[in-house]
Parts: sequence; structure tokens; C-alpha cells
Amino acid sequence: MATIDWLTRAQRISQRLERLAEITDEPGRLTRTLLSPAMTQATRLAGRWMEEAGLQISSDFIGNLIGQTPGASGKQVFLIGSHLDTVRDAGRFDGALGVVLGIELADIFRSGSDLPFSLWVAAFSDEEGVRFQTAYLGSRAFCGLLHQEDLEVSNREGSLRALLAAGQSQIDLPTGVVSGNQLLAYFEVHIEQGPVLEDRNLPVGVVTAIAGQSRFRFNWTGKAAHAGTTPIPLRRDALLGAARFALQVENACTRFPGLVATVGELNVSPNVSNVVPAQITHSLDVRHQDDFVRAAAVAWLGNEADHIAAERKLSLERLTVQETASVACDQKLTGELAAASKFVTGASLELPSGAGHDAVILSQLCPVAMLFVRCRDGLSHHPDEFVQLADIETALRTVAKFIERLGRAEGGT
Amino acid sequence: MATIDWLTRAQRISQRLERLAEITDEPGRLTRTLLSPAMTQATRLAGRWMEEAGLQISSDFIGNLIGQTPGASGKQVFLIGSHLDTVRDAGRFDGALGVVLGIELADIFRSGSDLPFSLWVAAFSDEEGVRFQTAYLGSRAFCGLLHQEDLEVSNREGSLRALLAAGQSQIDLPTGVVSGNQLLAYFEVHIEQGPVLEDRNLPVGVVTAIAGQSRFRFNWTGKAAHAGTTPIPLRRDALLGAARFALQVENACTRFPGLVATVGELNVSPNVSNVVPAQITHSLDVRHQDDFVRAAAVAWLGNEADHIAAERKLSLERLTVQETASVACDQKLTGELAAASKFVTGASLELPSGAGHDAVILSQLCPVAMLFVRCRDGLSHHPDEFVQLADIETALRTVAKFIERLGRAEGGT
Repeated sequence: MATIDWLTRAQRISQRLERLAEITDEPGRLTRTLLSPAMTQATRLAGRWMEEAGLQISSDFIGNLIGQTPGASGKQVFLIGSHLDTVRDAGRFDGALGVVLGIELADIFRSGSDLPFSLWVAAFSDEEGVRFQTAYLGSRAFCGLLHQEDLEVSNREGSLRALLAAGQSQIDLPTGVVSGNQLLAYFEVHIEQGPVLEDRNLPVGVVTAIAGQSRFRFNWTGKAAHAGTTPIPLRRDALLGAARFALQVENACTRFPGLVATVGELNVSPNVSNVVPAQITHSLDVRHQDDFVRAAAVAWLGNEADHIAAERKLSLERLTVQETASVACDQKLTGELAAASKFVTGASLELPSGAGHDAVILSQLCPVAMLFVRCRDGLSHHPDEFVQLADIETALRTVAKFIERLGRAEGGT
Repeated sequence: MATIDWLTRAQRISQRLERLAEITDEPGRLTRTLLSPAMTQATRLAGRWMEEAGLQISSDFIGNLIGQTPGASGKQVFLIGSHLDTVRDAGRFDGALGVVLGIELADIFRSGSDLPFSLWVAAFSDEEGVRFQTAYLGSRAFCGLLHQEDLEVSNREGSLRALLAAGQSQIDLPTGVVSGNQLLAYFEVHIEQGPVLEDRNLPVGVVTAIAGQSRFRFNWTGKAAHAGTTPIPLRRDALLGAARFALQVENACTRFPGLVATVGELNVSPNVSNVVPAQITHSLDVRHQDDFVRAAAVAWLGNEADHIAAERKLSLERLTVQETASVACDQKLTGELAAASKFVTGASLELPSGAGHDAVILSQLCPVAMLFVRCRDGLSHHPDEFVQLADIETALRTVAKFIERLGRAEGGT
């Protein structure tokens, strides 16, 4: 690979991301959702780039695009991918970077290379879940993990089934494009969407796991009272209970290292300046890469909440909204990726992913690994989302080295 | 006064309050606002009761109703009053109790009594300020404290001036129905609107002062960040700063005895469960009967807020919304009232009023005093607002004794 012009290739990735960012369902801002006109157009463009990289393309009923290495039917598949859909008013790197960088790698290792596996690229059609508020429809369909009942999800326009079938009552769901046996691994390059790499001054980071997540809704009930006429000892102020708890949520993150927990949404009732708050509802989001630590933290927080409620004579309801187990990245793959990072950048930082990615779904079929790329200010899901050209180049070199090492490890020459 | 049938009189007060409660601008719930049809009707009814009690009635341009003792022009005036307007969906005691109880007292001490002062009753037309969000329009007009520019307040229907004048450009504002010299005192009976009397198991309480009030708007700005990908040390969570401050507000009420301080309204932005809160705006309401203590508490809270903001790298804006000085009740009147309470009930509790009342305005003309009557659960501004018949009777006896004592003190026989 001595003759590769990395900068030129990084520039092409950057230009392609700009072109994709122009393809939107909402003029003036970037929004591409499952099966929308902009998604169809963006997928077609990515398909052309895949073909230019020597891949054979195909797409499925839900709009996933797959580029396969031709004439390598006996080999296992090393799948590189990410998603082409976006949130509303998105940045241009989230998802698209992984797809376009994957295509560039397919071009670098194009057929005729001596890799002992087949390098495929996937562009999933729905990761963000904007259209139906159901994430991962694309990768779930690809993995054969989408069921008939999943097609009943609906929005104001109607159900997913109706969108797919335009009236047909039965849709044949493929059992998956590839079986788990065929897949050697799934690998995803993604922007970090957080500030850790920037804080450590590193261009890339090796993902150890995708954190498990618990989400709750808390409801504290005290008693409304006149703010001028009710002495403090006679109050049952729900806001003070919730405030105390929010600070204990922060304390939990010190008590349980690696824990990330947040009260992000909080609503006060009646929310009037001269009335003691009667009721607070708020969210609680708890994440950790180790499910046991997360469970221990959730239990500790539950005790703290009960204690606060008893002390302040508040009643407390807790509703579990979501429980998602963590997904560990494959240790062997992660080790090779870390070695590649060290070779290219001189350093290797391992960090968990606090956000979900298509790798969560693919992990049900095969080993997964991920590389994070530094993004400015940790900002994502925002038009100002930005990755430096130099970091794209570093990511490309790191992944190329990673594939090269894997090829050797898997018995290539 | 040995022959007075207190229970029958208390029952009449109760029945009259029920009749007034039927007169509303909103079918199905009690709402009477300045110069509305229901206000006009309620004022007319109260006027009839005043005439039955031997008073001569008059009303002014803003709808205040005054009942004067006839033929006592040389004497100073002891004015008993309260307001007939209500909040929306009100209870039937707030305001009306003081008016109807005042009329009953006028009947008890009707002309021909040997009091050395003239007993007048006032029914003010706007204390709650619902129609123009400007409290005390009634008593301010009565005291000659309403100015031409005050008539420019407006709501969706138009200005107060337009409502009063129906097109006239100039309105003659009287300089006040009575001058300060003529007024011996203003006295108001009002429900407590708080839980203290109920907590102490007492039917009535003697008001020492109407608390001064400071109102602020706080604005904490941190930085929005992904709740899954941003480690705690890299966050600037505005909610945690505001939560810490809310708990310090509670602590201030211990540190400064008698302080009543509340964060009642709080709004989070962007208020999404998986985003670290970037901005919090909240109210702060601080009350104390001693203006110096209130100022000290406000200064302490300001320091605490600055400290929290610095520690958490939040920016903080503070806007003063309102500063109202406390109004002390007259010590001599309060002493006589306490003696009357002790005589009738065997006990006398002095307490500050955390809410504002017409007495705040009247205090600019003459000494003021107030008696609080226990209300169930401390509840007010609500259809379930309730005062027991026995407590109405106790209040009536207490005030009658109070007037009797005052008459003696002022040189009556």
C-alpha cells in the first residue's frame, strides 16, 4: 500500500460527504429518512460510487444498499458499513462517513487483492428511526431480525407495512442477506458524537463496547401550596425532592466509575412562581459498558430516590421505559484495531460508545468492532457537526492498516 | 352586647357568602373580575345588605362600594373592608368574608351606638388583578393613589381607560374618598390562605405585618451535550446548577428564621431525555416580614448562586422582577386585637401575612390591622376553599370585642 495517496482519498471522502449532504427532504437543512425521495437518491449515488469501487450492488425491500466483492463466493465476508439516513437538521458525518469511508476502503482493497475474506460495504436505510421512531429498521432487516409485527409501527402517514407494500397485506421478509456463518465480522467507522477524543487530543479511538442503557420516568408528587403563606416545615415541595435526586444522579457517576447518567427532561406542575411545586416528572438515562455496574447504579439510585421521597413526604412513581444490554466489541478485532491505531497515530485510546449504532444489531450475527473519529466540540445531530480532513485521512489509514493486519491474521499472504 | 346571637349572625354571614358565590362571570365556577357584569351584580347585592345594616352607600368610578354611617360627620372613620373580586375558579371566602363580616359588624354597632368613631365598610372592586394583571386597582382608587398613566394598562379587550370611559379621553380621578386625617384605621378580616392556624389548631390569628417580597428570574446557561457520550467531568449541566441552588433556597429558610422562599416555576431547555440540559430559567420568590432580613437573605442567595455558577462553569443572569417592602400592622391596634382574641378564644397567635392584601395600599393613608381566619388545609384560590361556621363565629366575636376595646381606648363610654 506504499503508493496510496491518502490525502487525495480523504479529500474524495470529504467531497462525497458534501454531495450527500445536498440530498435532503427538507430544503435548507439536511434531513433524510427511511424510503424518502432523498434517501432513494442518496442511496443511488452511493451505489454508483460502490460500482466505481468494483463492488456489485444490490438493495433490499427496506432500502438497504449492499456492495459485494464479485467472484469471491467461497470467502467469509468482512462487512464495513453504517447508515445513510439522518436525524432532522442533521450534520453530514453521522452515518455517511462510515459508508463513504467503507467504499474508499473497498476501492483500496478492490478485487484482486490477496485478502483472505471478501470485503463488502453496507449502507443501511434506517438507523436514526426518525420516520417511525423505531431505530435500526435497516440493519434489523439486513440481519433477518425484522418480524411481521414490526411492520405495524406507524406515524401520521400510516404504517411501515403500508409504506412498503402500498396496499399488499403480506410482505415477504427475507431471512437476512447473509447468514451469521458467512460473516467474519461487522466493522463500523463513526464520528464519536462526544467530546472525549477532542479532550484527549486524539484523532481516532477504539470502541470497547456499546453501553447498555436504562431509561426511566420519575414522578414525584407533593402538594401545591401558596408560596407566600406556607412555612417551609409545612411544605411538601416536589421540586426540592427531584432537585436532591438529580444531584444524587451526578454523585452516582463518581461512585460508579464510567457511569453516565442524566436527568435531561424535567417538567414542573403547576409551574407558577408563587405556588409550591406539586408534581415533577423527569427522565433518567443511565448508561455503562458493564451491565452489572449499570444494574448496581440503578439499584443505588432507586434507594436514594425512596429515601428522599420518605424524608420529604413525597410520593414517588418510577416507570422503566427501556432496558438495553451492553454490546461488547470483539476482543481480537479490537486488539488488531488498537494496534493499527498505534501504528498510524502513535497512540491508542479505548473508549465505550454511549450512543447506539448499527453494530448493536449486527452483534447478533457476528463479532463487531468500531472506530470512532474525533468530531469538533463533541457536536453531532446538528448542522455544525464537523470532522477535520486530517482526521478522515487518519481514520482511513488506521482502518486500512487494520484490514491489512486482519488479512494477515486470517491467513492471507 | 350580651344579647347578640352570634351563631345566627355567623349563619347569616355564611348564607350571604353562598349567595355571592352564585354570582359569577363563568357558569359552573366562581370568577368575578373588575367591572364585569357579575361584579356589578355582587356589588349591588352587598350594597343592599349595607343599607339593611343602616349604612349609606356610595360607589366610585372603578366600582368600589362604600357604606358610611349616616350623621356622624365629625368623627374619625374606622374602616373595615376587603374585596369582592375573585381569581378565576375561586373559593367563596377570599375577600368576600371580610366584606360580609364587616357588614355584620356595622349591623351590630349600627348608628346610635356609642362608639367614638364612625364605622364604615368598604368592598373593593379589584384586589386580585385578574382583569388587567395589576393588583389593588380598587383600593388604590379609593385612596387617591391611581394616576392617569395607570389607566393605560390593557388586556386583549383594550385599556382600563377605555373600559372606564367608553371613549372619553380624560377621566377625573378623585383624590380619594376620604383623606388620611379622617381615617382612624383600616381593618381587614381575611382567610389565612395558609396552613399555620390549622397546624396550631387555632381559629383566628393576629397579623403582625404583610411580608415584603422580592421576585427574581434566574437564567442558568451551560451547554447541551449528548447524554450518552459526554462524560460527567466534560459536562456543563445547567439543571444540576439550578437544582443545587433550589436546595440552597430551602437552606436559606433555616438560616434566616421566618424566611419563606420558593422556586415555583422552572423550565428546562432543550428538555429532552438524552440531552444534557443547556439552559434553565426559574423564578425565585423571597418573603419576610422584616425587610432587612429579606435583603440579607437575598444577598446570601446571590452569593450562593454565583458560587454554584463558578464551580459548575455555568453562566448566570439574574433579573429582579419585583421588590415590595413589608407593611407593618399598627402595634396599638394589633395589641388590642390580640387582647380581643385572647378574650374570645383563650389564645392569641401573631403571624405575618405572606400574601398581599388591600391593607398594603391603605397603610399609605392610615394605621392598618388584620385578622386571619383559619381555612381548611390552607387552601385558597380554589373552589374547595373552606372556613368552618364556628370559625366565622369566633372571628365575628373577636372583631366585635376588638371594636369595643378600641372604642373604650379612643374615649368612648
